[in-house]
Amino acid sequence: MALPKKILEEKLRRFVEEDVGHGDITAFHTIPHGTVVEAKIIVKEKGVIAGVEEALALSEVFGLKARALVKDGSKVMPRTEILHIEGDAITLLTIERTMLNLFSRMSGIASHTNRLVEMVRRAGYKTVVAATRKTALGLGYFDKKAVGIGGGDPHRHGLDDMILIKDNHLAIAGNVKNLVRKTREKASFSKKIEVEVSRLSDVLEAAEVGADIVMLDNLAPKKIEEAVQLLKKKKLRNKILIEASGGITERNILRYAAAGVDIVSLGEITQSARALDMSLEVVRVKKGSSD
Amino acid sequence: MALPKKILEEKLRRFVEEDVGHGDITAFHTIPHGTVVEAKIIVKEKGVIAGVEEALALSEVFGLKARALVKDGSKVMPRTEILHIEGDAITLLTIERTMLNLFSRMSGIASHTNRLVEMVRRAGYKTVVAATRKTALGLGYFDKKAVGIGGGDPHRHGLDDMILIKDNHLAIAGNVKNLVRKTREKASFSKKIEVEVSRLSDVLEAAEVGADIVMLDNLAPKKIEEAVQLLKKKKLRNKILIEASGGITERNILRYAAAGVDIVSLGEITQSARALDMSLEVVRVKKGSSD
Amino acid sequence: MALPKKILEEKLRRFVEEDVGHGDITAFHTIPHGTVVEAKIIVKEKGVIAGVEEALALSEVFGLKARALVKDGSKVMPRTEILHIEGDAITLLTIERTMLNLFSRMSGIASHTNRLVEMVRRAGYKTVVAATRKTALGLGYFDKKAVGIGGGDPHRHGLDDMILIKDNHLAIAGNVKNLVRKTREKASFSKKIEVEVSRLSDVLEAAEVGADIVMLDNLAPKKIEEAVQLLKKKKLRNKILIEASGGITERNILRYAAAGVDIVSLGEITQSARALDMSLEVVRVKKGSSD
Amino acid sequence: MALPKKILEEKLRRFVEEDVGHGDITAFHTIPHGTVVEAKIIVKEKGVIAGVEEALALSEVFGLKARALVKDGSKVMPRTEILHIEGDAITLLTIERTMLNLFSRMSGIASHTNRLVEMVRRAGYKTVVAATRKTALGLGYFDKKAVGIGGGDPHRHGLDDMILIKDNHLAIAGNVKNLVRKTREKASFSKKIEVEVSRLSDVLEAAEVGADIVMLDNLAPKKIEEAVQLLKKKKLRNKILIEASGGITERNILRYAAAGVDIVSLGEITQSARALDMSLEVVRVKKGSSD
Amino acid sequence: MALPKKILEEKLRRFVEEDVGHGDITAFHTIPHGTVVEAKIIVKEKGVIAGVEEALALSEVFGLKARALVKDGSKVMPRTEILHIEGDAITLLTIERTMLNLFSRMSGIASHTNRLVEMVRRAGYKTVVAATRKTALGLGYFDKKAVGIGGGDPHRHGLDDMILIKDNHLAIAGNVKNLVRKTREKASFSKKIEVEVSRLSDVLEAAEVGADIVMLDNLAPKKIEEAVQLLKKKKLRNKILIEASGGITERNILRYAAAGVDIVSLGEITQSARALDMSLEVVRVKKGSSD
Amino acid sequence: MALPKKILEEKLRRFVEEDVGHGDITAFHTIPHGTVVEAKIIVKEKGVIAGVEEALALSEVFGLKARALVKDGSKVMPRTEILHIEGDAITLLTIERTMLNLFSRMSGIASHTNRLVEMVRRAGYKTVVAATRKTALGLGYFDKKAVGIGGGDPHRHGLDDMILIKDNHLAIAGNVKNLVRKTREKASFSKKIEVEVSRLSDVLEAAEVGADIVMLDNLAPKKIEEAVQLLKKKKLRNKILIEASGGITERNILRYAAAGVDIVSLGEITQSARALDMSLEVVRVKKGSSD
Repeated sequence: MALPKKILEEKLRRFVEEDVGHGDITAFHTIPHGTVVEAKIIVKEKGVIAGVEEALALSEVFGLKARALVKDGSKVMPRTEILHIEGDAITLLTIERTMLNLFSRMSGIASHTNRLVEMVRRAGYKTVVAATRKTALGLGYFDKKAVGIGGGDPHRHGLDDMILIKDNHLAIAGNVKNLVRKTREKASFSKKIEVEVSRLSDVLEAAEVGADIVMLDNLAPKKIEEAVQLLKKKKLRNKILIEASGGITERNILRYAAAGVDIVSLGEITQSARALDMSLEVVRVKKGSSD
Repeated sequence: MALPKKILEEKLRRFVEEDVGHGDITAFHTIPHGTVVEAKIIVKEKGVIAGVEEALALSEVFGLKARALVKDGSKVMPRTEILHIEGDAITLLTIERTMLNLFSRMSGIASHTNRLVEMVRRAGYKTVVAATRKTALGLGYFDKKAVGIGGGDPHRHGLDDMILIKDNHLAIAGNVKNLVRKTREKASFSKKIEVEVSRLSDVLEAAEVGADIVMLDNLAPKKIEEAVQLLKKKKLRNKILIEASGGITERNILRYAAAGVDIVSLGEITQSARALDMSLEVVRVKKGSSD
Repeated sequence: MALPKKILEEKLRRFVEEDVGHGDITAFHTIPHGTVVEAKIIVKEKGVIAGVEEALALSEVFGLKARALVKDGSKVMPRTEILHIEGDAITLLTIERTMLNLFSRMSGIASHTNRLVEMVRRAGYKTVVAATRKTALGLGYFDKKAVGIGGGDPHRHGLDDMILIKDNHLAIAGNVKNLVRKTREKASFSKKIEVEVSRLSDVLEAAEVGADIVMLDNLAPKKIEEAVQLLKKKKLRNKILIEASGGITERNILRYAAAGVDIVSLGEITQSARALDMSLEVVRVKKGSSD
Repeated sequence: MALPKKILEEKLRRFVEEDVGHGDITAFHTIPHGTVVEAKIIVKEKGVIAGVEEALALSEVFGLKARALVKDGSKVMPRTEILHIEGDAITLLTIERTMLNLFSRMSGIASHTNRLVEMVRRAGYKTVVAATRKTALGLGYFDKKAVGIGGGDPHRHGLDDMILIKDNHLAIAGNVKNLVRKTREKASFSKKIEVEVSRLSDVLEAAEVGADIVMLDNLAPKKIEEAVQLLKKKKLRNKILIEASGGITERNILRYAAAGVDIVSLGEITQSARALDMSLEVVRVKKGSSD
Repeated sequence: MALPKKILEEKLRRFVEEDVGHGDITAFHTIPHGTVVEAKIIVKEKGVIAGVEEALALSEVFGLKARALVKDGSKVMPRTEILHIEGDAITLLTIERTMLNLFSRMSGIASHTNRLVEMVRRAGYKTVVAATRKTALGLGYFDKKAVGIGGGDPHRHGLDDMILIKDNHLAIAGNVKNLVRKTREKASFSKKIEVEVSRLSDVLEAAEVGADIVMLDNLAPKKIEEAVQLLKKKKLRNKILIEASGGITERNILRYAAAGVDIVSLGEITQSARALDMSLEVVRVKKGSSD
Repeated sequence: MALPKKILEEKLRRFVEEDVGHGDITAFHTIPHGTVVEAKIIVKEKGVIAGVEEALALSEVFGLKARALVKDGSKVMPRTEILHIEGDAITLLTIERTMLNLFSRMSGIASHTNRLVEMVRRAGYKTVVAATRKTALGLGYFDKKAVGIGGGDPHRHGLDDMILIKDNHLAIAGNVKNLVRKTREKASFSKKIEVEVSRLSDVLEAAEVGADIVMLDNLAPKKIEEAVQLLKKKKLRNKILIEASGGITERNILRYAAAGVDIVSLGEITQSARALDMSLEVVRVKKGSSD
């Protein structure tokens, strides 16, 4: 989750390129060439800020001077100024929407994640709140980074990250025990193996043949608790991490945490998070008008 | 909103490329090479489907045979099968998440848009429900297309699409009257000009100097209604379109429609729409296991 | 027509990359490493300069210091120095041809456009002189920008810019009246609609059903004048813009202007404009020879 | 000048991608989905055709069936049909302008080149008519290929192609004799070396120290003839090729040929050639209207 | 290590694009257009073949029909035909070198890896023979895949793959114990953590605070054996994998295996492997010569 | 072999981008944000250094300050410090492997090439030691540049560089004499023509019809000497360059040089060169730890 600035800048430059097409015809025709302005970004609702590093990189790559007034992860109240920018007015207006779209999406994800994490912590659980791969296409890096800023775990980023044997793999290629064993033999030692299981017996077998993590998908908290207890009884609890997934939301997350799992993962924090409302306001025109 | 299939395919190919990194290590290690399967995509909740063309193109570019069971824009009930796919199992599992992420985002946007459009229509208004540029970065094309499928208007796609003079342009470069007039003189005849206004007098002036559309941003419905009446009185109502924007949601949209505007635009339909829940299920393994 | 400098730079960088292949083997083998020179670009014939912003951006992205001696749009006489550059000699010689090719193409287009615009203005007409999409592939942005600098109108840039229903669309999908009406209903409010017409009755119908512009393609000036008069008689002249296109050249442009159209468009200003002759001359070797 | 079809296709696909932006909104809104048409490309003026291979590749990559009715290099009369295309109507209209722009540019270049080549041949000379690097940015491959089809020589394509020591290199780094000698020692044996010379003595020295070609730039035909005679006298004529360049046009080319040079090169054949007028006409609608 | 064919094809296409530049001028000028040939690829020395999937994909993307005569991983003797190709002669000669370069590099790496793996197996050890990140830039995927085909372990592919705390991280940020502990707390549960250690005490601490793997870099086999024994004594041997790295070659690899490590890793198998000699021979000209 | 720095930087940036994926998770989690370090690159074995320009460009593009302590082409002894770098610690560790992989590959190639060149020079021959196109895919520029730094000749870079008629072209399209003659007529004057020959009579004919270079592939030195003598006897030795290729190695290279050829070319210097061992060591932590 730490792209070098130069790599990040190129990603952000391309987003602007796509939006700008053959030019920002509004700014071009309205703003006198050479106008310099100061502007600020204001958050309009309560939340956790994410995207500061990206906003700074975006400003820098387009030649604007930006200063962050809060850090990634800060909790802010409505009307908080989070970024101050200064520079060429046409450029600023051209990148405004790209900056806001990224900032408000990342902050929305971080805020939602953080709400869940705090709910779990306040209830006294150490359960990891994790994302899934249900991210916006092309925005996986940013979505996952925002989850991390909100206190969550990004989980695997892509298909090359960790081995995660799911229901469809099992439907095609065999049972949990055999598939985990075979995969452990063939795959690189550098990779963890997670496997989705739906029956208690599979949980045990997965742990025995060397899975690092089991995913209990769409199981009721009660069933999950049974699995946890069974592993404890068989002295396998420490050998394996347990992830609960499927149908978990703000309303029922504590029941999963209470069931004793290590990780709960939710698609909604990246897939359906509300953007955090914010806007950019020009606060001073420093030079210009002579067009 | 009509990309040639070849152009669309390349966009989709790149999304998979990003997700797959150096390979889908799970499918590679678990599924016997040469396995062929049939699968279906099932929608788990009620909604309007969007993304069928994309799902077909994605399948085709990766050599899978897909058949759509519904059209874009169809309203479906939970447990409806919307796509049937057949082909190489490893490839299918590799593109599964990309396909679902796009399909469920687009369908979520179309569903949300459609709910608003139907609410407006049922109340007897012809008001256009439009999107804004608050889209996910890099996904503008898909987000806007989904809005259209849901019955909404995509509004401008990018900065090169239409001239839209907003508060920040006005803050920097002059009043509505002068800026619209100057822009009308300089800009290409092929472009419409829209201007954001906050005072009734500006609405009149905008219409008089040749703006095609006025955007009434963050104005109360009552104020908006006054503006509409004023334009009618001055015989300018037919010369200009009126768009209401800012703070419009499912809860208050009808009041804006009732105020007599031509267009209402909402950021939330692209920025904060919930994804429509769907999943891919393997239904038959046709060949394989001999690995 | 206002790309942010960073976006422009990347386009220009790619042009050099293509030309340079695996290296400028001439400069590499002849010029001592570390040589610094001053050079100037001289125009060899009379014309209107376009491409100054591009030449400055190209210089900057490759680490050369350039200073423009004229502005875009300036009329210059033969032997005018238009740019002064200083920096690493090998780099300068490597980008020389790219810079000159862009500069002289853009200036050629601006000069040709300007000649037509001035001819029209001197004859007392306000007719807009517009380009078409007959641009060099991949150079549309630069060609259109040069047209604007020459005083012309870029017209639509690409297929996503404005709706332009042409003869082939009509041949396939229906008559002017029906097609314009249907399109007005389906297309975004943010887009203008232009339609090509060949009969007087179609001109009227187009205006009535809401076309923003009619294109009279390959019609004799006399016929065009009839159309203009007819619209006036029906009180529709102010509702619609009229564009004449097809077969218009320097020799007959005034007759089209006289016919009363709003816009004349010509493919030749981008497709067949002569490049403006210019060259780069090294004027001082400041450091070097120690290779 | 022989790109594999797959490489060519990708270049052409990108040209369409740039033009199409977020979609061909005209075709999308007017043409019923699924419509299939037949169309033909007609040349409207006399000329030499170039671009057939490109038009076929462009058609193929977008799923259209095209059949060429003439070969590259064919001389055609006005109203000749040169290509017949069949396929999806929306796709065809989307790529129409890209296809015509490339076809008419390449044919314009081939036609202009061919006129010069034939003029030279009819006058009884074997002089090679060559292009320069004064091509449209990004279109070098196509421009040079068109020159070849017209019977000309493409000359070097890019900076990595041949060593060409020009006036600016000499101004910075030394005299002809020393620079050619040093370059011959350092450069790869696989490269030819050409050097620009302005004095007769330099011609001799260039030949003596191993230049493969001398370029006589902006020299009067009479001066050039002297150089040729001098080389003959010194028995060096067979050791070196002589290229005349600078200020050569249709009007004076025969005088350069008569002077006895091997090659004449002209910037105008790529930089200022008129496009050959052609258009695409739909000739039959085979399926559709059910939209 | 399982890229979908479509993704692989695009990578391979780009390699050819780079090599072909503005065209394969040899094939273009010598081979009659339309010539079809059959050819075969012959291995000239003993080895293990890798690159079959790539060669087939490369053939397919360029429209050639290829048939593999051996599988990836096959051991072959000199003069074995491994691939049979048929198709357009110009295209085949254009891609010949790209195909051979990839095939012979991958086979060279697979052969070298396999020699080491067999040496270790024959000596009775189960030690994993692993690669490092010392791959050719841009070829990591292919280099690692070849290691796998040779029976080795690819180890981590990139910087996002597994956490590997090396000497420089320790030099900057703290001791083994603290850094592993802190990293385990902050990093995603989905990632393994490996740490480089140089002292026996660090080995124990790494195991205790949750490292998944320890890397013993540049330690003598004797020292390594001590570490292994110590871990056994402390009952920690099963909690952690041990990798030996640094200075391991064909000559000493068995001594490291004998020391009881789980993994030995060697940079030389990707960085300094000899390419396996192979060549492409045309065996039949099926059509042509009519040029 | 002289890419402008800006072009080079983009190539290098892309190599890092590929390696870094979604982030250097090790540096991100271990190194305190804001830490600044000094580091050095040390060569561990004797060799010739190549890649200094690349290492400096890579440092610069990622915002690190680097200073070279040796020049490209320097011969160094073990433990020589060749580069000193200072800057952000996370960035430095992220690009470390990319820098070392390029540096050690290029230095390995330069060292191997140089050993051969010196062997030939010490034996009193002027024979050029040349590379082939057997380079790592995508690394051709760097491989060839390293050959040049080692004192060798890069030979042709790509398929567009020089005409090289090989055995397969001859097998398909005709004999040496006819094919060279036809190619000389059709190809650009700017290109050299080389032809592979296997019989003495072909050598003569190639020289007579205008080949610039003959390649004697896989011929014994004795046979080659006969060819050289024959050319001398026929007074054709000065008209043509002779290249020996195929099976040439460190062990037999002098025998080929002694045979009187102008050039010997070897695939192994790029395809099978051992990387030069080097490493990066952090030498000072200047700021940090406050994370």
